[in-house]
Amino acid sequence: MQPTIDAHYSDLIARIRDAAILGSCAGVLGWDERTYLPRKAAAYRGEQMALLARLSHEMWTDPKIGEHLDALESAPLPDAPDGTMTVNVREIRRLYNRAVKLPKSLVEELARVTTQAQQEWREARAANDFARFRPWLEKIVALKQQEAEAVGYNDHPYNALLDEYEPNATAAEIRQVFAELARELTPLVSALAEAPHRPNTEILHRDYPIDRQRLFGEQAAAAIGFDFQAGRLDTTTHPFCSGIGPGDCRITTRYNPESFNEAFFGILHEAGHGIYEQGLDPEHFGTPCGSYCSLGIHESQSRLWENQVGRSRPFWEHFFPRLQQTFPTNLADVSLDDWLLAINEVRPSFIRVEADEATYNLHIILRFELELDLLDGNLKVADLPAAWNERFQKLLGLTPPNDALGCLQDIHWSGGGIGYFPTYTLGNLYAAQLMEAARRDLGESDLEADFRRGDFSRLKSWLNDKVHRPGRRWSAQELCRRVTGEHLRPQPLLHYLKRKYEPLYGIG
Amino acid sequence: MQPTIDAHYSDLIARIRDAAILGSCAGVLGWDERTYLPRKAAAYRGEQMALLARLSHEMWTDPKIGEHLDALESAPLPDAPDGTMTVNVREIRRLYNRAVKLPKSLVEELARVTTQAQQEWREARAANDFARFRPWLEKIVALKQQEAEAVGYNDHPYNALLDEYEPNATAAEIRQVFAELARELTPLVSALAEAPHRPNTEILHRDYPIDRQRLFGEQAAAAIGFDFQAGRLDTTTHPFCSGIGPGDCRITTRYNPESFNEAFFGILHEAGHGIYEQGLDPEHFGTPCGSYCSLGIHESQSRLWENQVGRSRPFWEHFFPRLQQTFPTNLADVSLDDWLLAINEVRPSFIRVEADEATYNLHIILRFELELDLLDGNLKVADLPAAWNERFQKLLGLTPPNDALGCLQDIHWSGGGIGYFPTYTLGNLYAAQLMEAARRDLGESDLEADFRRGDFSRLKSWLNDKVHRPGRRWSAQELCRRVTGEHLRPQPLLHYLKRKYEPLYGIG
Repeated sequence: MQPTIDAHYSDLIARIRDAAILGSCAGVLGWDERTYLPRKAAAYRGEQMALLARLSHEMWTDPKIGEHLDALESAPLPDAPDGTMTVNVREIRRLYNRAVKLPKSLVEELARVTTQAQQEWREARAANDFARFRPWLEKIVALKQQEAEAVGYNDHPYNALLDEYEPNATAAEIRQVFAELARELTPLVSALAEAPHRPNTEILHRDYPIDRQRLFGEQAAAAIGFDFQAGRLDTTTHPFCSGIGPGDCRITTRYNPESFNEAFFGILHEAGHGIYEQGLDPEHFGTPCGSYCSLGIHESQSRLWENQVGRSRPFWEHFFPRLQQTFPTNLADVSLDDWLLAINEVRPSFIRVEADEATYNLHIILRFELELDLLDGNLKVADLPAAWNERFQKLLGLTPPNDALGCLQDIHWSGGGIGYFPTYTLGNLYAAQLMEAARRDLGESDLEADFRRGDFSRLKSWLNDKVHRPGRRWSAQELCRRVTGEHLRPQPLLHYLKRKYEPLYGIG
Repeated sequence: MQPTIDAHYSDLIARIRDAAILGSCAGVLGWDERTYLPRKAAAYRGEQMALLARLSHEMWTDPKIGEHLDALESAPLPDAPDGTMTVNVREIRRLYNRAVKLPKSLVEELARVTTQAQQEWREARAANDFARFRPWLEKIVALKQQEAEAVGYNDHPYNALLDEYEPNATAAEIRQVFAELARELTPLVSALAEAPHRPNTEILHRDYPIDRQRLFGEQAAAAIGFDFQAGRLDTTTHPFCSGIGPGDCRITTRYNPESFNEAFFGILHEAGHGIYEQGLDPEHFGTPCGSYCSLGIHESQSRLWENQVGRSRPFWEHFFPRLQQTFPTNLADVSLDDWLLAINEVRPSFIRVEADEATYNLHIILRFELELDLLDGNLKVADLPAAWNERFQKLLGLTPPNDALGCLQDIHWSGGGIGYFPTYTLGNLYAAQLMEAARRDLGESDLEADFRRGDFSRLKSWLNDKVHRPGRRWSAQELCRRVTGEHLRPQPLLHYLKRKYEPLYGIG
């Protein structure tokens, strides 16, 4: 007797769920590695992670998964096109194909090369020596080209890589949206540089003791809806959010006792990621219907809370008096307007991770364009530094004085993460477009009144319903259309930036 | 062509090592569960642990392991009886047999019953209601009897259970040593109760702020040789030591700001376990030659540092002035003699985990005797409370006023841990006998002079060489004979106790 559709489906889901649980064990070890691991334990932790990765890959490439998918795809499934079963089969197929299409030899070669390349990159950056990193980046570009060929693609090999981070997105669509964005962003940034109001950022660099920063940050994260009964906040070197599983999502930050912004907006950012993870449907944990939609949508949730909410006037109308109480000697002489201007400073600079909300996207557009050209062979790795500097000048009006402040600054390429960068700006774009829809659905003035009272629950519930609970039911583009009524567009982000900056800076 | 002996051996070791690495991933999750797990994550953590346990069991019961063992056992191995290959084959066989002899149905039934029984035990203890726990303990005793039959044994079913914790030990040997010990301990405890010097324990319950306790405890743990570059100290409810793998061993404690002993001697205790784990041979990690010998030997290492060293006069000749500096308002008026008497208080009490170094063993002897009788049917579970109280009176001169202070106090039986208790007193016995040998080998007065200078390195190196590096090469009994020249005997512990207590208490 043939197994029934239900039998195929339930064994498929059991296997995928086991793989997800095993992956989440690696998640705990990864979190631990970046927070509490003893110094001498690093090598052994590598062995643990390698074993878990091997077992996880074995689970994901088990031919039984392919057999179940074949059987399920050949039968009409008893639910709607966005029903749970149909979505899970569709999305598991995507992941399974990617897992089995990549030859084991390529996966191992990529792991070996990127492990060493990250080490070489660290030293090359420290020594400001691109020549040292160049052969490694050449190897990585060649391997990622092979990966794209193995996975298959339409139009541009970049689409094969992008698909891992932003399913269904295409380089052509992104290129068009990014070009429109750059066209208006560059003059906006120039105008702000000559604006009459100048931020006094010295107020951000007074004495901010770490324990009070932690307390204030935790209070803000809890206020916007991060559940500390189902999560934690710890300290690390390179902050991240790790969603382990139902009831367990961990965010991290780093503190600088002479700088307020880094930890505080970092906490809001990671809490935004965490609220998304905590908002996924636990009933569907481990399956596509219980997973985040795309990295762009994930980033939209962090950016929305960090910037759209956390750098807004209504937010600080509630929090600024509390901040003054927490750091009375620093902020007694500071007005709310001074504060808002300081935390919204716009200034072209060389380093992406230190960039403000407006110029940040220009850093990403630069990287996206360079990645496309590297991958299709229009740009040779040897010519990368010159191309970087030339485009940087065009986009941001500055020329990096050296490669450490230029094309050597990011870890991503050394780790093989080509195709990842655009998700950062997609996040900013989705955040603005989603927030516009939230204002429309919930009422702009009502929402701002909520924020002034320190109440973020209606916005959080709206995001839970509209963005978090659907999981991977629709692609990011389709989710955007369903929630906002429109395709992804650059206008909401541009409109948001102008509407905020023009009065703050006294222009327009 | 048949695989060679080397091929069998290296695949066997690769498999065992993978199982050990996977087990150590569960070790990280277990540590996390008891230190940092968010409250709402408990259920999901259970799913993660269950998956890792299942995968680990699958690895351990893979028929390939049996085939390799059969092949290796049928050939003369090219090394000595205590050579690495011979030892690993012998000890892997022991573990494999235990894993495959237990029917899956029994393993699952035990897991199910003990999970629920622990919950029932918690509530029964809180309600002081033995009747509530009785049916669960009856089930557990019956299942452990089945386990003993499945595993097989000589003489007494208890030996089959003991073998999991203390390989090669027998109930008969332990019974004899324990009986001799009890014969002399009970009158010693009575004599101390009527001694002229009385400890003033109030000095232990002054204001001991937690952060200073932590600092002082970490300094002492580092001084005796716990490597904080290869380990950590965290806070938990029920302290433990978790040896994850090479370079990664984590100890825990709990602090009471109004009590010095609990955290400090707890830290020394767990650091002793940790020094053992850190002293195992990393080259043999994951195999018997790189594993701890037995739980009794493990406990000997914690007790040695906690009691033999940590409650000794030379130790405090070094640390007491530092303690006075750390807690100046508490200890300015306290003499070293007052302090030594206070931290060495002997007083019969009802609760094992609060018992002192001398009476503790009487608590263990009681449990060991009851376990033997329960397992061979000489004692019915229904008659346990009466038997407990009667023997408690005989051993300690007190009668528990209720079962919560009597036979309901420990979690072990509810978790199926019958056969575990004797390892605690074996640890005390081995600690005393090993310390006697260390004094002989290193010179008693030289060793005490070391301690007075805060130098514990010669003792630690001696333990590394004699006890830690051999791993599971010899049984605990054989290790004891090789290091001390004698079988395990009660005299060294009795001699140590009398020699310490008689002058302190002004008797003898």
